[in-house]
Formats: sequence, C-alpha cells, structure tokens
Amino acid sequence: MPSSSDAPGSSLARGLSVELLRNAEPGEAFSEAAKRVVPPDESVAVEARARHDTLTKPPGALGRLEDLGVRLSAIAGRCPPPLPAPAAVAVFAGDHGVLRQGVSPWPAEVTAQMVDNFLAGGAAINALARQVGAEVVVVDVGVASELPGSPGLVRAKVRAGTGDIATEPAMERDEALLALDVGATVARELVARGFRCLATGDMGIGNTTPSAALIAAFCGRDAGDVTGRGTGIDDERLATKVSVVEAALSRVLEPGAPSGSASKRLDGGASKRPDGAARAPFAGTDTALDVLAGLGGLEIAALAGYVVGAASARVPVVVDGVIAAAAAVVAAALVPGCTGYMIAGHRSSEPGASVALAHLGLDPVLDLGMRLGEGTGACLAIPALQAAARVLGEMATFDSAGVSGKHT
Amino acid sequence: MPSSSDAPGSSLARGLSVELLRNAEPGEAFSEAAKRVVPPDESVAVEARARHDTLTKPPGALGRLEDLGVRLSAIAGRCPPPLPAPAAVAVFAGDHGVLRQGVSPWPAEVTAQMVDNFLAGGAAINALARQVGAEVVVVDVGVASELPGSPGLVRAKVRAGTGDIATEPAMERDEALLALDVGATVARELVARGFRCLATGDMGIGNTTPSAALIAAFCGRDAGDVTGRGTGIDDERLATKVSVVEAALSRVLEPGAPSGSASKRLDGGASKRPDGAARAPFAGTDTALDVLAGLGGLEIAALAGYVVGAASARVPVVVDGVIAAAAAVVAAALVPGCTGYMIAGHRSSEPGASVALAHLGLDPVLDLGMRLGEGTGACLAIPALQAAARVLGEMATFDSAGVSGKHT
Repeated sequence: MPSSSDAPGSSLARGLSVELLRNAEPGEAFSEAAKRVVPPDESVAVEARARHDTLTKPPGALGRLEDLGVRLSAIAGRCPPPLPAPAAVAVFAGDHGVLRQGVSPWPAEVTAQMVDNFLAGGAAINALARQVGAEVVVVDVGVASELPGSPGLVRAKVRAGTGDIATEPAMERDEALLALDVGATVARELVARGFRCLATGDMGIGNTTPSAALIAAFCGRDAGDVTGRGTGIDDERLATKVSVVEAALSRVLEPGAPSGSASKRLDGGASKRPDGAARAPFAGTDTALDVLAGLGGLEIAALAGYVVGAASARVPVVVDGVIAAAAAVVAAALVPGCTGYMIAGHRSSEPGASVALAHLGLDPVLDLGMRLGEGTGACLAIPALQAAARVLGEMATFDSAGVSGKHT
Repeated sequence: MPSSSDAPGSSLARGLSVELLRNAEPGEAFSEAAKRVVPPDESVAVEARARHDTLTKPPGALGRLEDLGVRLSAIAGRCPPPLPAPAAVAVFAGDHGVLRQGVSPWPAEVTAQMVDNFLAGGAAINALARQVGAEVVVVDVGVASELPGSPGLVRAKVRAGTGDIATEPAMERDEALLALDVGATVARELVARGFRCLATGDMGIGNTTPSAALIAAFCGRDAGDVTGRGTGIDDERLATKVSVVEAALSRVLEPGAPSGSASKRLDGGASKRPDGAARAPFAGTDTALDVLAGLGGLEIAALAGYVVGAASARVPVVVDGVIAAAAAVVAAALVPGCTGYMIAGHRSSEPGASVALAHLGLDPVLDLGMRLGEGTGACLAIPALQAAARVLGEMATFDSAGVSGKHT
C-alpha cells in the first residue's frame, strides 16, 4: 500500500484552492481564460517536422510519436518543445440526479467513497499516476454529500449533484458557468505551480449518461450511437439508459416537442443542432452553454473549463475517456481554438468516446480497451508525450553524431 | 544533449561482459538457459484475474492493462507480481552481407556509427530509455568493423558480419550457437544485476531482410507477405528485397531446387516447413538452428538467446519490432516454453512483424506506426507493464477502502 507521502496533495498541488468562486461573477474566470486562447503555432509545427528529418533515424520511423512531438511544438510555440512535465491529473468529482432512473447499478455514495480512495492513494488513478510521475489533484465540484476537509481535496462544490436530466435541467446556467470557472481556475493554478502537462480525470457514478447526451447533442448523433455500457451494465439497463438519453435530448434540444421525439428531430434537422451554433466563440448567450447546463454534469462542465484553462496557458491537455471527451466537445463548442491543445490519451471502449474523438479530429495514443475513467487512460499516455518531446530535444542529428546519410 | 551520466553502461550494467565465449562449447550457455525454461504458472493467472475483481474498479474496466497484470503474475509465479523494474534494453548490433544486394539505401558503416551514437546517448532509444527509466546496454555481436572499447559496450563479436544470404549461409552453425550464447548470457547477467524487465533492441543496417526471411520460414509464409519497406525504401528496391528473401528461402529450405522456386514449394509443402519441426524442444540437430544459421543475422540469433535467457529467469521480455519479432519466432521454435514470457511492446508497421506476432499469439501494447527498431517500441511499452503490476500490487480492494459494491 502506498505511504501517505504518495497521497494526492502531498507536494506541488498541496493547498490548492479555488478562492475566486466567492468573489467573482459566474463565468468570469472561464471567460478570462477563453479570451486568451489562441490556436497552436502551425509554423512551429512545420519547423518540428523539418527537425525530425535531421535526427539520427530514418524519416518518419517513429510514426505517431513524431506527430506528437510536432503537436507539442506547435502548442508550446517552440521547437524543440519543453518537456511536458511535471504532469498533473485533476479528478473532478460530481453526482448525478439521473441515477434515480436506474442507469447504473452502482449506488451514488460510491462517488464520495471513491474520492476518499483517491485521497488515500488506493485507486487505479493513484497507481498509474505514481507510475508516470504525475500528481493527482481531487476536486469536489458537485459531490452530493458533504466531504470532510483534506489537504489533498480542492473544495469547490458548485451544487450537491445535478438534477435528473430525464426530467429537469442538470443545473442552472450560472451553475454551469461556476463549474467552468472551477475547471479554468484549477488549470490556471496548476500551471502557476509549474505543471506543464494537464490530464483530465473524473469521478461521478452515473456520468456516462450525461456524457452520452452531450456527445449526441454536440456531434449531432442519436442516443443509440453514443450510449454505452459504462461500468458494464446489462442489456435491460442499457435500453433504459438509451431512453433516458433520448428524453434528456428531447427536453433540451426540442423543448416544445412531445417526449420521445428527439431522435427523429435530430435525424432530420442538422441545422437545428447545437453543433453548428456552438462553433461561435464563447459568449454568455451561447446555445452551447444552455445545452451544457441542461445535460450536465458538474464535473463535465468543470473539465470543459479545465481544457480551456490549459489551452489558454498553452499547455497540452490529455483527454481521458468518454467523460473527458464529452467535456472536450463542450470546450471546443465554447472556445473552438482550444481543440489544438488536446491530446487524446486513449480510445475508451465506450462508443461515445470514439464519436467525440472523431468529431474533434483526435487520434488516441493508446487503445487498450480501458473504460474506467478517473483519468487512467490519459495518465498512461503521458510517457509517450514526454518521450515525443525528448526525441526532438535530446536526439543527435546526423551531423552532430557523424552518422552517414542514405545513398540517394 | 544528455550528459555522460545518461550514457549506457553508467550504472547497473557497467562493465558487463560475456566471458563464457572464451571458455565454453558453442551453445552451452544457451542450452543451460533453455533447460531451465518452464511455462508461466497459469494457476497464478487465475488468481490474478480473481484479484482484479476485488479491486476498486468495475470488473474488467482496465481492459488489456488487466491482461498484462495477469500475464506478469503468471510469469513471476506470484500475485501480485513484482514490479517489472528496473528495466534494461539490450541493443544487439550486427552487420549483414546481404546489403551488397541493394536491399537498403543506407551504407553498412551506419551500424558502427549508430553504436557510437547509442554509447553517446544521442539515439532515439537513449531518449526513450531515459523517459521510462530503462538502461541501454549495447552489445557488439557482429559489427563488421572493429569497435573501440567503451565502458558501455559489451564486446561479444562472434563474427564480423554475416554472409550474403542471397548466395551463402549467414553464419556457421557454431556461430549461430555462439550468438545464442551471447544473448542468453547478457540476459542472465542483467537479471543477476537486478534487472526485472528485459527489452529487446537491435541495430544492423539491412536487418529487416533476414528478419523477413526468418519470419517467412518459421511462419510458413511467402516472401511477399512479410517483406516490408524497412527504413522506407522505394518500390524498385522493395522488389529487389522480395527476390533476395525468396532466393535465401529457396537456398535454405529447398537446397536441391532450382533458384526461384521457394515460394511455390512453401505454398504447397506445409509439412516440409521448419514450422512443424521447430516445435520440438531445442536440440543440437534441430532444423530450426540450421534455418537460423542459414538466414541470420548475428544480432537476431543473439536476441533469440536473450529471449530464452529472460524466460529461463522468469523475467518478462518485451518484444520490439520486426527484428525482435523474428528473433522471438526463432526462440519459440527452439524453446516453445519461452513464448509465455514475451510481451509484444508494439505493432511495427513492417508487415512481417504482424505475421510474427500472430504466429506467437501476441497482442501488442502500442500501435503507433513505429518502425525504427533499436528497442524503441519495446521501451515505450514499459510504463504500461509497470502500471499493470502496480494495479495488482497497490490498488485498494472494495473491502479495504470501504467502497460499496454494485446492486445485484
């Protein structure tokens, strides 16, 4: 078992707090971050591709590791890129009112119990973070119960769990803005403390349901295309889950329509989807924000803010599974320029994850059939990112090493 | 640029030598290792699967990371398995007479130049090994030129490059045995020095050609199925390379047949292939050894010995790309029990690699379109292996963490 020194909050991230929630207008921190987002520098990407061809290896022989190095160079705006280290994985936790619809066999109290487990260092994300040298930061943005204080816990609860999205909005618009603020602030503070690689983590029993709904809404897909088995539910529960996602979509996207008509309307009404409208830059009146507030969850909204916060600091953000992918889709809708800062850590086995990654144009680093969340798939991809930067920064060139080129 | 303290041989592996070459019968060290190989303990695999289901995550949610943990448990014969660390990557270097057939645009001297680059810490494998905390060990088993002494270089040259396999054997049978001894001895010494994860590396301009030939021979496939573009050759050179592989196969597998008939004979003559005969345990008179000696190369033979050496010590051996995969196929033919100790680090973009991995029943950890060799793809998979062991060794159970189970 890990010692307490391995527990979250023991070093760089200790004492992290989200003070601004008490002093600012909802959306202020997020909006500040959003305004600073500029796309990665593609001229530096060109420079990085050229540099790769001078290094002591056949051109292109490191495959997608070379692409990652190019991306990191464009993100940082220089080549060779800085090592994306140290890395932090922020695990945003929240509960979900939709759990009462029977979408998951796991009881809601597991969210808080797993937060304890993260803080004690006993969860999968802790084991993986220790392996890759990343720090775990746990953020309560919406856990239903009151959690005891802990040096490793960032207390930033916006509300005690979302509403049941089958029948009511996940949260108010201002709550969505506050959750976005929490994520943006966590990213800003982590970068201020020296972290140069931010991985996305989540915990929330039931959260594959709002993730599926958000991905369906923003990618213009049917509930059935994007709703998966989450923790491993059976056929009956999956059917329930799909109909809950349909009901939520119907309520949010077609507020005047009779219940159950969502998938039909989505099929035929591309121009009515938020997919198009959402491409506008973030603004207080955006449809995207309404959809986020309508479908939730709190940790997904915070993750969207975190993605934008990382992008605003020109730091790569590693996207985990379907929950993080849903948040990334929301972030891209609110602030299109942030997409270039995303690295997909892995391909979750949840169908919605693949839909979201395709929508974002992201090709995942790993494909190991993982579907745990917590940031595990993002975390496990970090060594490949760091290796990609080392290739550009540490390898000798043909000239410097005195290695002959090939015959022409 | 890395400091000299990052260079190979600077710590645990410093001063490694292969003394036995001077004192023993050819094949003695390899034979000793082969005799000690027992299959992994599948009862421990069952235990590891059961343990996974007690850990604080949904059953199976870590996907193939769980399979890796199961495999590591069976390999070590205990669950949780020991952390496969520290890791070493042994890069065996050798030259290839077949280069004179025009199979590669790179000049032969690049093999020795890249050995210098490894020793200076400037190659891709050095950058990746630094990332994952692995040590690089460079072994001259068959470089054509005389290399200067260096604390990081294991001098174990069996012969100065192979014969041209288009027209003559790669090496004598005794030379193949000595190269197997080199690899088995390097593995034994690394384990004696405390390494608990051995990755396979290679350097040898031209070595995708003998690798293709060996994979074709042992997997019963045509030259065209397994011969790839290596460092990135054009169509014309690829056609040359395929015909060279065909000629080598014809010479070794059908010694009495007219030149060019190999692919036909292989098509119709499954019972004549070494694939079947090779399944017998290692013995001095095996067909498999004759095929290895006939097709080469020296670094591939050493890698086969290294794989068997790792298996004999019950240490996982991480298989890199097509050269390592060819060696793994040879090792499996000589000592079938060693297959259970192999972990495929990645799927090289070389077609022969996929054929070899399928033949061995291995599913690679990474699939990043890499085709560099040197051990780069094996090295980059090491964090996933170590993470898999940490999951079983460090994660809390539902009971220990007080996390509720799901409703039944």
